Amino acid sequence: MPQPFQRRQFLAGGAAGAFLCALGGERTFPFSSAKEVAEADAAARAVKKPPPVAKDPVDTMSFPTPQPQPGGVAREYWVQARPLKWDPIPTARDEWMNMAIPRRRKFMALAYQLYSPGFAKPISAPTIPGPTLEAEVGDTLVVHFRNGDHHFDQAHTMHPHGVRYTPDYDGSYLASFTRAGGFIAPGDEFTYTWEARPDSVGVWPYHDHGPNGTISVARGLFGTVIVREKGAKKPDVEQVLVMHALTPQITFAAETFQCFNGRAFAGNTPTVRSKVGQDVAFHVYGGDGMFHTFHVHGHRWKNDAGADVDNPTLGPHEVITARWTEDNAGRWLYHCHVFSHQDAGMAGWYIAEP
Amino acid sequence: MPQPFQRRQFLAGGAAGAFLCALGGERTFPFSSAKEVAEADAAARAVKKPPPVAKDPVDTMSFPTPQPQPGGVAREYWVQARPLKWDPIPTARDEWMNMAIPRRRKFMALAYQLYSPGFAKPISAPTIPGPTLEAEVGDTLVVHFRNGDHHFDQAHTMHPHGVRYTPDYDGSYLASFTRAGGFIAPGDEFTYTWEARPDSVGVWPYHDHGPNGTISVARGLFGTVIVREKGAKKPDVEQVLVMHALTPQITFAAETFQCFNGRAFAGNTPTVRSKVGQDVAFHVYGGDGMFHTFHVHGHRWKNDAGADVDNPTLGPHEVITARWTEDNAGRWLYHCHVFSHQDAGMAGWYIAEP
Amino acid sequence: MPQPFQRRQFLAGGAAGAFLCALGGERTFPFSSAKEVAEADAAARAVKKPPPVAKDPVDTMSFPTPQPQPGGVAREYWVQARPLKWDPIPTARDEWMNMAIPRRRKFMALAYQLYSPGFAKPISAPTIPGPTLEAEVGDTLVVHFRNGDHHFDQAHTMHPHGVRYTPDYDGSYLASFTRAGGFIAPGDEFTYTWEARPDSVGVWPYHDHGPNGTISVARGLFGTVIVREKGAKKPDVEQVLVMHALTPQITFAAETFQCFNGRAFAGNTPTVRSKVGQDVAFHVYGGDGMFHTFHVHGHRWKNDAGADVDNPTLGPHEVITARWTEDNAGRWLYHCHVFSHQDAGMAGWYIAEP
Repeated sequence: MPQPFQRRQFLAGGAAGAFLCALGGERTFPFSSAKEVAEADAAARAVKKPPPVAKDPVDTMSFPTPQPQPGGVAREYWVQARPLKWDPIPTARDEWMNMAIPRRRKFMALAYQLYSPGFAKPISAPTIPGPTLEAEVGDTLVVHFRNGDHHFDQAHTMHPHGVRYTPDYDGSYLASFTRAGGFIAPGDEFTYTWEARPDSVGVWPYHDHGPNGTISVARGLFGTVIVREKGAKKPDVEQVLVMHALTPQITFAAETFQCFNGRAFAGNTPTVRSKVGQDVAFHVYGGDGMFHTFHVHGHRWKNDAGADVDNPTLGPHEVITARWTEDNAGRWLYHCHVFSHQDAGMAGWYIAEP
Repeated sequence: MPQPFQRRQFLAGGAAGAFLCALGGERTFPFSSAKEVAEADAAARAVKKPPPVAKDPVDTMSFPTPQPQPGGVAREYWVQARPLKWDPIPTARDEWMNMAIPRRRKFMALAYQLYSPGFAKPISAPTIPGPTLEAEVGDTLVVHFRNGDHHFDQAHTMHPHGVRYTPDYDGSYLASFTRAGGFIAPGDEFTYTWEARPDSVGVWPYHDHGPNGTISVARGLFGTVIVREKGAKKPDVEQVLVMHALTPQITFAAETFQCFNGRAFAGNTPTVRSKVGQDVAFHVYGGDGMFHTFHVHGHRWKNDAGADVDNPTLGPHEVITARWTEDNAGRWLYHCHVFSHQDAGMAGWYIAEP
Repeated sequence: MPQPFQRRQFLAGGAAGAFLCALGGERTFPFSSAKEVAEADAAARAVKKPPPVAKDPVDTMSFPTPQPQPGGVAREYWVQARPLKWDPIPTARDEWMNMAIPRRRKFMALAYQLYSPGFAKPISAPTIPGPTLEAEVGDTLVVHFRNGDHHFDQAHTMHPHGVRYTPDYDGSYLASFTRAGGFIAPGDEFTYTWEARPDSVGVWPYHDHGPNGTISVARGLFGTVIVREKGAKKPDVEQVLVMHALTPQITFAAETFQCFNGRAFAGNTPTVRSKVGQDVAFHVYGGDGMFHTFHVHGHRWKNDAGADVDNPTLGPHEVITARWTEDNAGRWLYHCHVFSHQDAGMAGWYIAEP
C-alpha cells in the first residue's frame, strides 16, 4: 500500500484534490503519477503563445515601464531558467542521525541561474532556490530573464510577490489574457521591471507562473526578493531557506524528500554559521503546497506582532523572518516541526561559534 | 488508484482521520464515500429533538434575550435554509486557462436564502455563501431562521462566530443539552438574537451546527457576519469570498472542485471589479476543513500585526480581510496558493479599472 | 479502502511523506503501520549512546550550568518518563452527541509523571500531557529527569521550547554530536537546567527528542512550560489543552482518535469550569504534526496582534493562549474547527457558572 499513496501525495501535496491540467485542451487529470506529469509536460510543450483577446477594457490598456524614485536606482539582474541534474542528498547520508540514505535520487530539476550583465557568463552555479534579488525602497528591480529550458522545452516566467508591477510584468500565463511577461518561450528573453515600494519591505517569493507553473515550481523554479528600507543595515548572517518537498512524480525516487533548498537531511541542507554577537536572519519561504513550521533550537525571536516565538507556522508561498543577535554558541538543529517532514529530511545544522 | 483516495479525502478533508457519525446511536463510520454520507443523512433524518437533561446547574439557567445598547438598533433578517440544485461550474470552462471542464457536476446543495420581512418573498436567489449579515457595535442582529430543508429533511441551525450570544442563541445541537436554537426541524422557525459587542468588530463565519452539521456545511450552509464600529465607513467595494471544497461524496462528481463561493475556475468564481482610488475589501473565509492562503496579484495589504502581506494563511472557519486603496489597474488573478487547490478551481479574476 | 489509508496517515499525519527511521543503520521506512512502528521500536531499543565525534570546534565546547538571576530562584521538578496503559475514551461515550463509542482503544502509552523531591514518590497519577513546569523571569527550571521506560526500553529526553538552554540541556539526540542531555537510557537520570529569560515569557511545549522521538511524542511524551513576568498574577482558571491524534499504528485501534490531552470526545476530554468574573486562560498546544484551530463557543479574545479572534490556527508544537474575563454563563463547546478532527473526538465542555 505505501507506494500508491505516496505517489498520490503529489507536489504541493497534502491538500490533494483533483489536479486539473490547465493547458487549453479539454483533457484534465490529476498529477498523481510520473506518467501524468509526463502527459502534462507534453501538453505544456505544445502550448503556443495565445493571441490576445480583449474581453474587458483593461485588457487593452498599455502601461509605462516603472522608473526608480528620486534617489533610487535600477538594480539589474540577469537570470536564466535552465534544466539541470540535481541530487537532493549529495552526501548520501543523514548527518543528524548518522544514517546512510542510499537511495536513487538524482533527477532532472529546473533552476534559476544568475548571470553577469548581458548573459555573458554564469556568476554562480545554478541553485535551488535561485538567486536572491535585492533592492531598497525607491529602487526598481530590472530582471533580464532568459528561458534556457531546452530539456522540458516549455514556456517559463518569473512572478514576484511583494513588489509592485504592472500587468505586463506580472509574469503570469493567463491564456487569452496573457500579457508580455506571462509566456517566455524556450530561447526567448524578457525584461521584468518591478518597483520596491514602502509596502514592499520584507522578503518575498518569486517563482514560475507559466502554463506548467505548478510542476515547474515543484522542480525548483523559485527564489526570493529582499526589499529593505533605504540604507537599512543588512544582517551579518542572512540565510534564505525554502521548505519544500521533492516528490516521486518529479524525481522518480521511491520516497518523497522533504527539503531545505533542494536538499534533504542534515549535512546536505545548508549548514548555517554565525558568531556570538552577530545579527543573524533566516528568511524562511514555504515553497510547496504544504504548511510548515520553522523551529530553531536554542533561540527565540519576535514575530510581526512582537510576540516571542521559536516555531512559527508558514503557509505555501509565505515567507517569515527569524532574526536575533546571536548569544548562544553551539551546534543547533533547525527543522520543520511537522515530524513527518523533519523525519524525511527537512532539518539542518546551525552552528553558532563563540 | 486515484478514485479511492480521492473519495477518502472527504469534505473538510486533508485532516482525514476517522469520521464518526454523531447521531445518538452506536454506529460510527467515516464519511469517506457517497454511501456513507447517505447513511449519515438517513440517521440525521431520524434524529428527534432530544428531551433536555440537566446534568449541571447551568443547564437549567434561563437567559433574557439581549437588547440593543443605547443608540443601537435591532437589525432584522429573514433567512431560510433550503435545498437547491447547484452547478459549481456554470460556464463549463476555466477562463484562466481557456479550457473546457465538461464534467458532471450539478448536485443537491444547501443554501441560506434571504427573505423579505415575515418571509413574504425571497429578496434574492439562494447563494453560496448565504446572505451577509451586517451590524454596528451596540446593535443586535435579530435573525429569523426557517428550516426549509424538505429534501434532506434534517434539522439545521445558524451558529455565528464573533458576536455575543447566550446559550439559547448558540445554534449548536448538543443532544441532551440542546438549547432552544440548537435544533430547528424542517418546517420550523426560530429567531436568533446576537449582540454586536466592541470585541465583535470584524468579519466572522456563521454556519449550520445541527446534528448533521459537518455534511450540511460541506453542502453550502455557511455565510458571514460583518460588525463595524458605529458609523464606520463601508468599503467602496466589499467582497466576501469563501474558500471551500466540493467533494465527490457530496457532489457525486468524479473530482473535487476547489471553490470560491460554491464555484470553481475563473469565470465561474466571482469576478470582482473596482476602480482606481476606491477603498477595496476582500473578506476571505476558510469554509471547509483545509488550510488555505489568499493571494492577489499586484497588491499588498496590512495584516492585523501591521505587516505587509500578499498571501496570508487562513484556517478552517477563520476570516481574514485584505483591504487597500486601489492604485494598480489591470486584470489580476486572485487564488489559493496551495497549488492543488488553485489547479482544481480555486482562482478568479479581480479587475481594477483605471 | 478505508483501513489502509487510515493506517497511512501516521501519527502526526496529514503531511505524510516518507517517514525514515533515523537510527543509525541503513534501513529506512515509513511508519505507516503498526508493524513498521514495531520495527522502529526494535531499532530504537538497540541504539546505544554514541561516542562523541568532534567535527566542529563547538562540538567540544563546555558550558557552565546556568544559575538564577539576582532575585530569581531555582524551581526544581522531578519528572519520570514511564509507560502506562491508557484509555482515550474512559466513558466509552461521546457526551456531546450522546453516542456510545464501544471501540477497542486501550493501548500502551508513554507519559511524563511528576514526583516529589528525590523521586521519593509520585505526586500525581501520570497524565497526558505531563506536568506543567512553571517559572518567572530570572528563575531557572531545574528538572530532574528519570527514564522509567522499561516497556519500550528506549532512550528518552526532555526538549523544551521557549526557555534558554546550553547545548547540554537541549535534550536532543544528535547521534555522534549528542550532548549530555540528549540520550537518557532506561533507568538513567539527568538534570536539565533551563533559564526563564525575558523573551521566554509565554507558554511553550516540552517533549521527547530522543532517538525515537516522533513515535514517543505520538505516544504521549509531551507537556508545557509556563514562564511569567516576575510577580505576574496567575489566571484564576488556567487550563492546558494539547490537541493531538492517537493513531492506529500506536493504539492498534481501528480508527484515529482526535484528542485533547490524550482523551477523545466530550465527557472524556477535560470539562473546564469557571465562574463569571474570573480570569480564564486556555493554553492550547498543537501536539502532533497536524494544523488545528481552537474555537470556544460564546467567547472572543485578543491574539498577539491585538485582534479579536475566536478560532485561531495553531501549528505543530505551537502554543496559543485564549484568555478573557468570564462574562457569559452557560455550557459551551470548545473544539477544533477542522471538522474531521472535531468529529473524531477533538471537542469538550467549558462550563461557565453564574
